[in-house]
Amino acid sequence: MDLPDDLLINAADEVRIRQHLALVALGKRPADRAVRVGRLLDVHGRRWHEDQEIVISGRRIAWLGPAGAYKGEVAERAERLNLHAVPGFGEVHKHIESSHLTPEHEAALVLPHGNTWTCEASHEFSNVDGPNNLEFWLTARRAGSPMKIFPLPGSAVPPTAYEWGGGHFGYDEQQSFLKQQLMVAGLDEVMDWPAVWNPENPSYERLWGMIRATFEQRGVVEGHAAGMRAIDDINAFAAAGMASDHEAWTAEEVRDKLRRGLFMELRPHSVKEMIGGLLAEGQQDWSQFALCTDDRSCSDTMKLGATDHNVRLAIEAGLAPEIAIQLVTINPARHMRLTPWVGAIAPGRFADLVLLDDVASLSIAQVWADGQQVSEGKTYSGPLPKIAWPGWATGTVNIQREMLAEDFAIPAEPGRQTMSAAILRPFHWADEFITMDLPVADGLVQRDAGRNVTKFAIVDRFSGKGLTSKMFWLGTGPKTPETALACSMGHDKHNIWVVGSSDAAMAKAVNALRETQGGWALVREGELAATVRYEVGGLMTCRPPAELDAEMQALYAAAEGIEWMYEPTFSPRWWPGFPERLAFATLTCAPWRWVLVAPSPLAPEGFVNVATGETHPIVW
Amino acid sequence: MDLPDDLLINAADEVRIRQHLALVALGKRPADRAVRVGRLLDVHGRRWHEDQEIVISGRRIAWLGPAGAYKGEVAERAERLNLHAVPGFGEVHKHIESSHLTPEHEAALVLPHGNTWTCEASHEFSNVDGPNNLEFWLTARRAGSPMKIFPLPGSAVPPTAYEWGGGHFGYDEQQSFLKQQLMVAGLDEVMDWPAVWNPENPSYERLWGMIRATFEQRGVVEGHAAGMRAIDDINAFAAAGMASDHEAWTAEEVRDKLRRGLFMELRPHSVKEMIGGLLAEGQQDWSQFALCTDDRSCSDTMKLGATDHNVRLAIEAGLAPEIAIQLVTINPARHMRLTPWVGAIAPGRFADLVLLDDVASLSIAQVWADGQQVSEGKTYSGPLPKIAWPGWATGTVNIQREMLAEDFAIPAEPGRQTMSAAILRPFHWADEFITMDLPVADGLVQRDAGRNVTKFAIVDRFSGKGLTSKMFWLGTGPKTPETALACSMGHDKHNIWVVGSSDAAMAKAVNALRETQGGWALVREGELAATVRYEVGGLMTCRPPAELDAEMQALYAAAEGIEWMYEPTFSPRWWPGFPERLAFATLTCAPWRWVLVAPSPLAPEGFVNVATGETHPIVW
Repeated sequence: MDLPDDLLINAADEVRIRQHLALVALGKRPADRAVRVGRLLDVHGRRWHEDQEIVISGRRIAWLGPAGAYKGEVAERAERLNLHAVPGFGEVHKHIESSHLTPEHEAALVLPHGNTWTCEASHEFSNVDGPNNLEFWLTARRAGSPMKIFPLPGSAVPPTAYEWGGGHFGYDEQQSFLKQQLMVAGLDEVMDWPAVWNPENPSYERLWGMIRATFEQRGVVEGHAAGMRAIDDINAFAAAGMASDHEAWTAEEVRDKLRRGLFMELRPHSVKEMIGGLLAEGQQDWSQFALCTDDRSCSDTMKLGATDHNVRLAIEAGLAPEIAIQLVTINPARHMRLTPWVGAIAPGRFADLVLLDDVASLSIAQVWADGQQVSEGKTYSGPLPKIAWPGWATGTVNIQREMLAEDFAIPAEPGRQTMSAAILRPFHWADEFITMDLPVADGLVQRDAGRNVTKFAIVDRFSGKGLTSKMFWLGTGPKTPETALACSMGHDKHNIWVVGSSDAAMAKAVNALRETQGGWALVREGELAATVRYEVGGLMTCRPPAELDAEMQALYAAAEGIEWMYEPTFSPRWWPGFPERLAFATLTCAPWRWVLVAPSPLAPEGFVNVATGETHPIVW
Repeated sequence: MDLPDDLLINAADEVRIRQHLALVALGKRPADRAVRVGRLLDVHGRRWHEDQEIVISGRRIAWLGPAGAYKGEVAERAERLNLHAVPGFGEVHKHIESSHLTPEHEAALVLPHGNTWTCEASHEFSNVDGPNNLEFWLTARRAGSPMKIFPLPGSAVPPTAYEWGGGHFGYDEQQSFLKQQLMVAGLDEVMDWPAVWNPENPSYERLWGMIRATFEQRGVVEGHAAGMRAIDDINAFAAAGMASDHEAWTAEEVRDKLRRGLFMELRPHSVKEMIGGLLAEGQQDWSQFALCTDDRSCSDTMKLGATDHNVRLAIEAGLAPEIAIQLVTINPARHMRLTPWVGAIAPGRFADLVLLDDVASLSIAQVWADGQQVSEGKTYSGPLPKIAWPGWATGTVNIQREMLAEDFAIPAEPGRQTMSAAILRPFHWADEFITMDLPVADGLVQRDAGRNVTKFAIVDRFSGKGLTSKMFWLGTGPKTPETALACSMGHDKHNIWVVGSSDAAMAKAVNALRETQGGWALVREGELAATVRYEVGGLMTCRPPAELDAEMQALYAAAEGIEWMYEPTFSPRWWPGFPERLAFATLTCAPWRWVLVAPSPLAPEGFVNVATGETHPIVW
């Protein structure tokens, strides 16, 4: 039988595969495999069925029913009579980049946790290399990785009109992605709310162009309504065509958004409060809910789990396990219009099974994907293709010169003893920036560690020139002298951010990233103390999770002797100690106002209010 | 403000409308209207909210929340404090042709019953005029009719490879429909199951071409699994990519289909048994269910109701009213991927409201559509555009000659006293046809009223030639002499069928339909006794329901003196008396086997087994 390889999805192959599956179901062609299970959860009707057999052909399910009832030939049989089968888990909104693993290694990490398909919230790599973004997300699958990645091109490319480089997505690009590949399910999280509602915003046309292309191709427009609690805003957001939100924090916010038609994607950090609160209010219908990870590092996944962790949190919050499982199977598949392929144990779908030895605790014994067993306990045993990622993926830190201390200096006006400075804190969402008087020495404006103020800079890694914007930040960075931390992951534009107690240390840290082509670099008291390599896109590594985790642990260890400043802002997502979350403190979407971006035509010093477009000097 | 008229849906207009709605929601532009209601059902979370206001701009909802909380200007306010607002009802699968009203009159009939949007199962008119089919379904809306019709081009065009004329849909046509118009939601009910599973079937390529085009454009492939109860068939059907079924009859069948991933669209005639049975089994999750009408005549709608009737039946079967309402709102909208436009009272959706004065009995006080009140009680008060249907719609009975008694004669072999004849009954789904010996007189094979046998014929109305196939049928037609009944609605090819006690009466009845351009014609004892005009497509009239109903009542009255034969076959859908349901006895989809179609290249006498392609003489 000459059948398609059935890795990527396209309509012509789909027809041939389904023509074949129908004949297998009828017993007119032999099946490859049958798995008999103790019972099986129908997520469509939320009912268990006892002693069932799942008949597989290629990567798909062809037939489903009582054990022994299938009439056709079966090449290979497996019995798992003590296990409970539920569908492979899906992520409705996840940035795989945040695991810092390339997709083939991500697959090996999360598959034993039941996660067999993921809607990739694709605006990290796409901000680094927009033109190759789709290719990037399909490469591992094409090479045989059993995880299905459904890329949603990011609306935030660039995140705002004040950022540039790497990728620029508008109507034409989105139309082309959706036409090229049926696995592209829609438009990923529309984040730049001021650019959506406000016709004067310079990103207005670009964003609405992407929305238009998505409507045209019957795709899903995903939303991102962070910090959006006013019902006028929620109404406007839904009226604008946003289909979902994953940024709610409280039961009340969930209810307000749900009833305006937003599909609710609940994230782990507050899932227990939200589900607990809704259950207390008597919520019975969970059909417009999903669970989602959004961002989780490989180290955290190794500790906590992947999608299974989210499901366990929902169960702990009081949700029936069967409903919690629907929240990562049929519900997200239906929302994303992917039901022909994933979300259920049903004919025509990929044969992705999570086999539980205990349902209440969601204890995963085995996972099957593409019709093959891929894990036993926590050990991955499925295919892990070896991918030689090309130059466009591995050469993305483009700074064609040595960075110097001078690049980070902030000159004072001649003769001044102090200068006024605009100050930001991590996760500072106020309408106004902070102002402080800072001392001047040697003609340069100085940090003030005593008041918890240090320097923060963004170095462009796309133009080759290493264009640098810098200012003073409050409550982050090292007090320890000659120390700096730099990273090439800086959401969502992913220029290099660097925070330090001296300009020379900052330059040294950034230069280290030029060498490694991305990742983390820690300079401690003048010496390079640790690096973590994200050699793919400056965001990910194509090495196994344990290797990356070891580097991260070495980074944490090297950072331990350093005294880190702290100011409370956005609890519970900003905390004392090693400032790992600075990588998210460079976001420019709503509800951020004043931000620091790389120097750009609309914001030459990089300091700009993204809600209004206003700029301001960093010192005066 | 220069905004699109917002009647049909296209992505470019959609963007402009939503850009505007967001500003209205934020109170930055004035709203047209606000309706304050006693309470409002959020179908996403299945919860009531008290004392709510719905703010409308143009035809859409812009804002939703507690009465008094909207900050913007409102031109006009309405208060309905004693009423309960639920979303406009949707039909997930309905042949509007079966009401025999053109869409503008259908709208006026069903809107007071809450039905504000319909997925048109479009293979009746399309079998009459395929090329103009999409235009036909959009015309009333374009002229301002407040009902939203989402056409799904029929897979059954033609129904089988043995039928022809009027329309021929394959890959190219379906691709073009989906690309032309965003309101085209997918592919309508795939009915010809033998052509789906069997590569040898002559319709195989055509059908899979339509399926392929639908997958390509992210549309929904609707199924039709009539009589399909064997789990092998159900599995094969789901594996082939069918997304739904509306043909289940029992709770067990529903469960077997639901768990294979088919979205269950429950029809009224057995909805109480199905819902009652499922509730008795403990069914709690109804998110993969909808209610649907499929076919209902305007006379029946006037008696029973429209979508509201279906909901009432579900409530009577024991379903909570709120769940029953979800089955005609959010559930079908989600299944058909139409949630941006219909299925909920939420911003961005069309402002379609059903205002109930009693929820438990689903008592409808008013209906709003497109942001305007369109009914009070049962009286329609909305726009009813006057449409001059063009010649392609009104000139569809193309027989360029007078039909003669000879056209219906069945010659015997010379010298024979009797001949063996192949016999069918209405709804005869057996593998084999019936055989009888029939008398010969004047060289022609004769009817035998004593054994309940009469003549049945199909006259082609597309070629101009009036090609006629004929045979003997059991258990239908008049015993009364010189009597015949003809109709230009004969599912699904909609040639003219005619049943009669004499060849001359049959010719006279068909000739009457040539004059009227379609409908019903009854010849009683040699005289034309009644006609009903379906002057549009030979299927519908563009007159008000009452006028059509009066003609139908006159037809029934004229038919009363006639003695009609009867044989029980398909209970409860075939009954004694006036054989109105012969219009459905000409179906050729599964589970039919032997059928009579107009003479065709693959079946020159028109008698063919549609499951196998086998033909057989009608007498021998």
